[in-house]
Amino acid sequence: MTYHEMYGRYVADVEETLISLLPESGEFAPSGENAIPQHLCESMRYSLLAGGKRVRPVLLLAACEMLGGELEQAKVSAAALEMIHTYSLIHDDLPGMDDDDYRRGRPTNHKVYGVGHAILAGDGLLNYAYECMLQDALAWPGNLEGHVRAAKAIAGRAGVCGMIAGQSLDLLSEHMEPDADRLRYIHMHKTADLLTAPLLAAAYIAKADEAQIAALSRFGACVGLAFQIDDDLLDIEGDAAQLGKQTGMDAQRGKMTWPSLVGVEAAKEKSRALWSEALEALECFGDRAFFMREFARQLHGRKH
Amino acid sequence: MTYHEMYGRYVADVEETLISLLPESGEFAPSGENAIPQHLCESMRYSLLAGGKRVRPVLLLAACEMLGGELEQAKVSAAALEMIHTYSLIHDDLPGMDDDDYRRGRPTNHKVYGVGHAILAGDGLLNYAYECMLQDALAWPGNLEGHVRAAKAIAGRAGVCGMIAGQSLDLLSEHMEPDADRLRYIHMHKTADLLTAPLLAAAYIAKADEAQIAALSRFGACVGLAFQIDDDLLDIEGDAAQLGKQTGMDAQRGKMTWPSLVGVEAAKEKSRALWSEALEALECFGDRAFFMREFARQLHGRKH
Repeated sequence: MTYHEMYGRYVADVEETLISLLPESGEFAPSGENAIPQHLCESMRYSLLAGGKRVRPVLLLAACEMLGGELEQAKVSAAALEMIHTYSLIHDDLPGMDDDDYRRGRPTNHKVYGVGHAILAGDGLLNYAYECMLQDALAWPGNLEGHVRAAKAIAGRAGVCGMIAGQSLDLLSEHMEPDADRLRYIHMHKTADLLTAPLLAAAYIAKADEAQIAALSRFGACVGLAFQIDDDLLDIEGDAAQLGKQTGMDAQRGKMTWPSLVGVEAAKEKSRALWSEALEALECFGDRAFFMREFARQLHGRKH
Repeated sequence: MTYHEMYGRYVADVEETLISLLPESGEFAPSGENAIPQHLCESMRYSLLAGGKRVRPVLLLAACEMLGGELEQAKVSAAALEMIHTYSLIHDDLPGMDDDDYRRGRPTNHKVYGVGHAILAGDGLLNYAYECMLQDALAWPGNLEGHVRAAKAIAGRAGVCGMIAGQSLDLLSEHMEPDADRLRYIHMHKTADLLTAPLLAAAYIAKADEAQIAALSRFGACVGLAFQIDDDLLDIEGDAAQLGKQTGMDAQRGKMTWPSLVGVEAAKEKSRALWSEALEALECFGDRAFFMREFARQLHGRKH
């Protein structure tokens, strides 16, 4: 199977699992115990099923297969991770946070459903992610502990010592002087942690050994930091193209970024170094890392 | 031990567990992997450690002991449930939701920490609740499945078919004509589900049988509905005392309530009937339900 065929299959698995976990709801106030009210369900689906590259769940499925684990055991965790990623985007876009009206060319959740329901849609996706993972854990009695460890790894990386910690520092650091330690902390947690989470979750589900877990952690941290630097570079190029300017400093809306700290060229150099360290971390997996290696290359070459 | 001694001991257990799970953080951007940044930690502690009756975690601990379960095994789940209750209050108070400036006489979370951090404090408490429960589940390898079932019961009752479903309908029903089915749905999910959750969680941790689970579900539903009706009645009495009026209709800020639907006297009658059904549901537990029975009586007799 080629890389693109594999990628297509992983994405199809993710979409199918998401739709099966969150089907349309026709009931305004459902009478059944396990039904989601229509409006709430719609607002969750609006953001969850908006397409996208599904980077995090694909990483989880690919890592699971690379480690020789059973793909079927990883699908719900992959979908749950995408729910967590989606809730963080909905809440990030809210007034009081980034206050964005558009995401990927569509109105943000609160612009369509109102601020109250956007808060609830985000809370709902976050809580439902754990509900699905806990339910799924019980469906694999022979690997219950692996699934609990996987869910805990996701909770840790998504939580108050992980992604939410990064969001908090990011919010506090607006309009501050750039500072390398602080910036590294924000990127490591706000971005990298949710890219390391799927790798760790896959490792626990597939019963990987300590050396494999360490290699995956290193790969995830490098990919995460490089991913964020590339994002900031793409923002600058986008803004520069639009505004005919060569610097993205004022286009960053006061956000601290790596290019604004060390300059565009040094940031590009840092990104290249991180991507090559990421590929190095995969060496211990040999040929089995074929997809993962190519996925990293594609992520590095991506355009918005 | 008297009822009040038992109650004091349960609350002390809850406070101690909460503080040990969420100690003060002195680091602005922590270097350790398992540390919460100071500002985020403070905003979570502000709402979590604000006192209160701790009704939900006390129900969990008391149900666990009533069923002959080990109290130690229930403490983290009880604390996690209080985190979920607290996050829901923080988000409920936000602009776009109820937009409240005060809760129990103190400024609401977003009034102190800003809307952005209040959103994050809520997200953080919700995610941390699951992180703690998953960590705790692994600490009881002999009862891993029981703990996973307990966490799943909490997720279900707190989630998009439970509390969040109730919040969604509540938000959509503001300024609508009162409707008994809709109101029952809102109260059952917005309030009762988070009072049933601790009973079910305790049942799974203590390995209760089906009949006991059914009795606890019935007790929880009755207590939950009665609790909400009493709340609405207390609001009316409070407002009436303040405004010198006999009706609370216009003081309900457009919220649909049982007294506004059927009148104050019929609501009081309904509350009394529900409390007595709640006590009936406890009969199968005999003397072991001593605390639970008295707790229900105290909840019914409570003043704000």
